[in-house]
Amino acid sequence: MGNFKGHALPGSFFLLFGLWWSVKYPMRYLCRKNKHVCYLASNSGILISQEINLTLPFCCVTGMTAEQFVPDGPHLKLYNHEAKQWDHLMNWQHSTMYLFYGISGIVDIIVHITPAVPLAMDRLMLAIAIFIEGFLFYYHVHGREMLDIHVHILLLVAVFGASIGSFLEIFFRGNILLELFRASLCILQGSWFWQIGFVLYPPSGNSEWDQKSHNNMMFITMCYCWHYAFSLLIVAINFAIVSCHCAQHDPSID
Amino acid sequence: MGNFKGHALPGSFFLLFGLWWSVKYPMRYLCRKNKHVCYLASNSGILISQEINLTLPFCCVTGMTAEQFVPDGPHLKLYNHEAKQWDHLMNWQHSTMYLFYGISGIVDIIVHITPAVPLAMDRLMLAIAIFIEGFLFYYHVHGREMLDIHVHILLLVAVFGASIGSFLEIFFRGNILLELFRASLCILQGSWFWQIGFVLYPPSGNSEWDQKSHNNMMFITMCYCWHYAFSLLIVAINFAIVSCHCAQHDPSID
Amino acid sequence: MGNFKGHALPGSFFLLFGLWWSVKYPMRYLCRKNKHVCYLASNSGILISQEINLTLPFCCVTGMTAEQFVPDGPHLKLYNHEAKQWDHLMNWQHSTMYLFYGISGIVDIIVHITPAVPLAMDRLMLAIAIFIEGFLFYYHVHGREMLDIHVHILLLVAVFGASIGSFLEIFFRGNILLELFRASLCILQGSWFWQIGFVLYPPSGNSEWDQKSHNNMMFITMCYCWHYAFSLLIVAINFAIVSCHCAQHDPSID
Amino acid sequence: MGNFKGHALPGSFFLLFGLWWSVKYPMRYLCRKNKHVCYLASNSGILISQEINLTLPFCCVTGMTAEQFVPDGPHLKLYNHEAKQWDHLMNWQHSTMYLFYGISGIVDIIVHITPAVPLAMDRLMLAIAIFIEGFLFYYHVHGREMLDIHVHILLLVAVFGASIGSFLEIFFRGNILLELFRASLCILQGSWFWQIGFVLYPPSGNSEWDQKSHNNMMFITMCYCWHYAFSLLIVAINFAIVSCHCAQHDPSID
Repeated sequence: MGNFKGHALPGSFFLLFGLWWSVKYPMRYLCRKNKHVCYLASNSGILISQEINLTLPFCCVTGMTAEQFVPDGPHLKLYNHEAKQWDHLMNWQHSTMYLFYGISGIVDIIVHITPAVPLAMDRLMLAIAIFIEGFLFYYHVHGREMLDIHVHILLLVAVFGASIGSFLEIFFRGNILLELFRASLCILQGSWFWQIGFVLYPPSGNSEWDQKSHNNMMFITMCYCWHYAFSLLIVAINFAIVSCHCAQHDPSID
Repeated sequence: MGNFKGHALPGSFFLLFGLWWSVKYPMRYLCRKNKHVCYLASNSGILISQEINLTLPFCCVTGMTAEQFVPDGPHLKLYNHEAKQWDHLMNWQHSTMYLFYGISGIVDIIVHITPAVPLAMDRLMLAIAIFIEGFLFYYHVHGREMLDIHVHILLLVAVFGASIGSFLEIFFRGNILLELFRASLCILQGSWFWQIGFVLYPPSGNSEWDQKSHNNMMFITMCYCWHYAFSLLIVAINFAIVSCHCAQHDPSID
Repeated sequence: MGNFKGHALPGSFFLLFGLWWSVKYPMRYLCRKNKHVCYLASNSGILISQEINLTLPFCCVTGMTAEQFVPDGPHLKLYNHEAKQWDHLMNWQHSTMYLFYGISGIVDIIVHITPAVPLAMDRLMLAIAIFIEGFLFYYHVHGREMLDIHVHILLLVAVFGASIGSFLEIFFRGNILLELFRASLCILQGSWFWQIGFVLYPPSGNSEWDQKSHNNMMFITMCYCWHYAFSLLIVAINFAIVSCHCAQHDPSID
Repeated sequence: MGNFKGHALPGSFFLLFGLWWSVKYPMRYLCRKNKHVCYLASNSGILISQEINLTLPFCCVTGMTAEQFVPDGPHLKLYNHEAKQWDHLMNWQHSTMYLFYGISGIVDIIVHITPAVPLAMDRLMLAIAIFIEGFLFYYHVHGREMLDIHVHILLLVAVFGASIGSFLEIFFRGNILLELFRASLCILQGSWFWQIGFVLYPPSGNSEWDQKSHNNMMFITMCYCWHYAFSLLIVAINFAIVSCHCAQHDPSID
C-alpha cells in the first residue's frame, strides 16, 4: 500500500523476526558450547521447541489480507474489465511477496513435523522467498521519482545479502555467523521500511522531502549505513544479554 | 521459431524433464534414507536404471530438426549469397541451444557407460548447456519491443539460477535440495515458455497484448512469480506422493 | 576531505595494515609448518600476541576526528538549518566508513578477549566494513567528472575483492592464500589512495590532469594494474624475508 | 597490436596451453585412478616432471618484446613529451597483460622449487592474471565500433569463467572437472583470438565485415558458442586418446 501504514506493517514484521532470531540463535549457540546441561537449556527449551510455530504464516496472512481488503485495495479483483487494464497491481505485488514468505513459513513447519523432508529445505525456501521479494522490488520502482527509487534499491542490498546468506546456510547449517548475519539484515530491512515510510509518506503533516535533491540521496545512502550499524548494535546487545544470562545460570561456576 | 509452436515445443521438453526430475530425485532420496530394502527399491530400480536413456538427445534432435526444416526454416543454409547476409539467424540460434543440451545428454550417457570419465562431468556439461542457453537469450532479444524483451529477460533468472545450481552439484553431488531446486526451475522454464507463446503469439485469434504498456510489464513480472509458486507446488506434491508410496511399501510398518 | 591529505591519511592506514598483514600471516604460516619449536616462535610470539591491539580502533578514531574537526569540517553538525540542507555530507560519509572499520576493530578485540563470541566474527565484521566502504564509494562519486569517477570506481575492484576474500575466510579460516590475497589488496588500496591524491589534487602546484581525456583514463586503468603488481611484489618480498629468517633460526639446520 | 598478427600470437599461446592442459590433466587423473603402477606412469612421468618448465614465462617475454619492439611499437617509451600525451597505450596494456601471466608463470616455478610457498599459490596467481586480462579488456574497448566491442566483450565470458574456475581450484585442488573446464575455456580463448583477427583485420585483402550490422552481431554471438562446442570436442578427444593409451598399457588387462 502506498502509504505510511503499508510500510510500517512489513517493517514491524521484519523487526519482530530479526529480534527473535538475534535472541534465539545466540541462545542455541551458547547452550551447545557449554556442553553441560545448564538451567538455561531448560528455559530455552521452551523457546526452541516453539520453532514449530505459526508466527510467520500468521504474519503473512495478516499482510495479504491487509493488502487485499483495505478500503482502496483490489478485493481479489485482478482485471478491470471496464478500463481494460490490470487493477491495483501494487497491492497484488505486495500480496505475492507475502505469499512466498507464507510458503516459506509453511515449509518451516512441515520440515519440523515430518522426517521425510530434508531439514535444510526451510533455508532454501527462505532464500527463495527473500530473493522473490528483491526480484519484485527491483521491477517495482520502474518509472518513479529518483529518491523513491533510491530508497527501494538500497533495500535490495539487504535483501540479496540475506538471500545469499540463507542459501549458504543450506551447506553450513547451524553456523552462528550466518544466522546472526541474517538476523542483522532482517532488522535492517525492518527499520528501513519504517524509514521509507517516514521519507516518502511523512506522517503528521510534515513537509515532504525533495525527491530530486542529490543532497538528500547522499544523506539517505549514509543513513542506510547508520541503520545497519544500529542493527549490528542490537544484535551485539542481545548476544551479550543471552551470554550473561547463560553464565549466571552456569552450574560449573556455582 | 517466432510463433506459438516454437515456444510450446521447448516448453514441453522442459516440463517433461522438470516433472521427471521432481519424481526421480525424491524417489532416490527416500530409498536411501530408508536403508532397508523396500519394495519401492525394486520398482524404482527400473526407473533409476533408465538413467542411461536417450530422452534428452532425442528431444534435442527433434528440436533441431524442427528448427531447421520447418517450411520457413533455413534448411541448413547459413548464408544468403544473394542478399549478402546471414540467413534465419533466429532458427540457427535455437538450433545451437538444442545442440548444447544434446551434448549434455550424450555426456550423461557416456558418464554412465564408461568408468574412465568422472561422474560429475554430467552436471558440469548441464551447467554449461544451461548457461549457453541464457547467454544466447541475453543477446537474442536485442532491438525488440519492451514486453518481448522483458518476458525473455525474466526467463534468464530461472536459467542462470539453474546453471549455478547445476554447477554447485559438481561439489555437492546427490544433494536433494539442489536437485529439487533444479527441477523446480526447469518446470518454471517450461511453463514460462508456454506463457511467452500465449503472450507474444496468442493462438486462436485473441487480441494481442500491448507491447509498450507499463501495466502489462508489472503484471508479467508478478505472473512469473506465480508460475514459480505453481512449480514449487508441483514439486511438493510429487515429493509427497513418492513419500506416501514409499511409506506404504515400507516392510518395517507391516 | 576533498584534498591531498584527505586521501593520504586513509592511504597510509591501508598501507600500514597491508604491510603488517603481509608479515604477520607468513610468520604464523611458516611457524606452524615447521612443527618443531624454533627461535622464531618465541620472537613472533610477541608479535602474534599483539593481535589484541588497539591499532585499528586508534586509526579509525584519528580518521573520524580529522574528518569532523578539520577547519572546513562539519564539527558534528549534520543539518544546516539556515540553508535548509544537509551539511558536509562528504565528511560525514568518510566518518561513516571509519566508523565501520572501528566497529570491526572493536569486534576483533572482543573476539580475542571473550570465548563466548565465535572466533570468525572478526572476519565477518571485516568483510562487512570493507563492503560498506565500497557501497558508500559507489554512490559517492555520483555527478563528478569522468576521471574522478573512474579512479574511485577502480578502487571498488580491490574493495569488493577484499570483502569477498574476508567473507570466504569465515569458512576457510587460517588459509594463508586468502590472507595474503587480502594483504595484497589492502596494500593496493593504500597505494591507490595516494595515487588518487596525486591525480586529483596534485600537490606542489603541478599542472592538473585533464579530467575528460580518454587517454588519461586508459593510462590510469593500466596504472592500477601496475600498482597491484607492485603490491604483489611487496608481499612476495616480505614472505621471502620471513621465510629466510625462519630458516636461519631453524634448530634442525644447526 | 591492432593487426592480425597481434591477435594470432596470443591466440596461439592460449591454444598451446589449452591443448597441453587437456592432455596433462586427464593423464594425471587416469594414472591416479588406476592405482597400480602402469607403463603410462613412467611415460607420463617425463611429462609431469616438466611441470617446472619455462614455457609460460618464455611465451610472456616473447609477447612483451613483440608488443614493445614491433616497428610501430612504443620501444619502452610511455609518455610523448612533444604531443603531451601518453604514447601507444594499446601496446602498453597488452604488455601489462603479458606481465601478469609472466608473474603467474614465475610463481608456478617457485611453488615447485621451494616447499615454503603454499602449493595453491600457483592457482591464485593464475586466477589473478586471468582476471587482470579481463579487467584490462573491459576498459580496453571504450569508444570503438559496435562489432569490435562485441567480439572483445564475448571474450570476457571465457576470461572471467576461467578466472573463477582457477580461484575455485585453490579449494578443490586436483579436481579434474575444474581443470578440464579451465583447459576448454583456454582453447576457446585461443581460437577466439584468431577469430577476432579474421573479423577485424581480414588477411589477404578480404572485404571487411560491416561493423554496425545487427545481423553480424547475432552471428558472432552464435559463432562464439560453436567455438566452445569445438573446444569441448577437442578436450573430449584428447581425454579419449589418453584414456585408450592408458588402457592399452594397463598390465591388469594383459
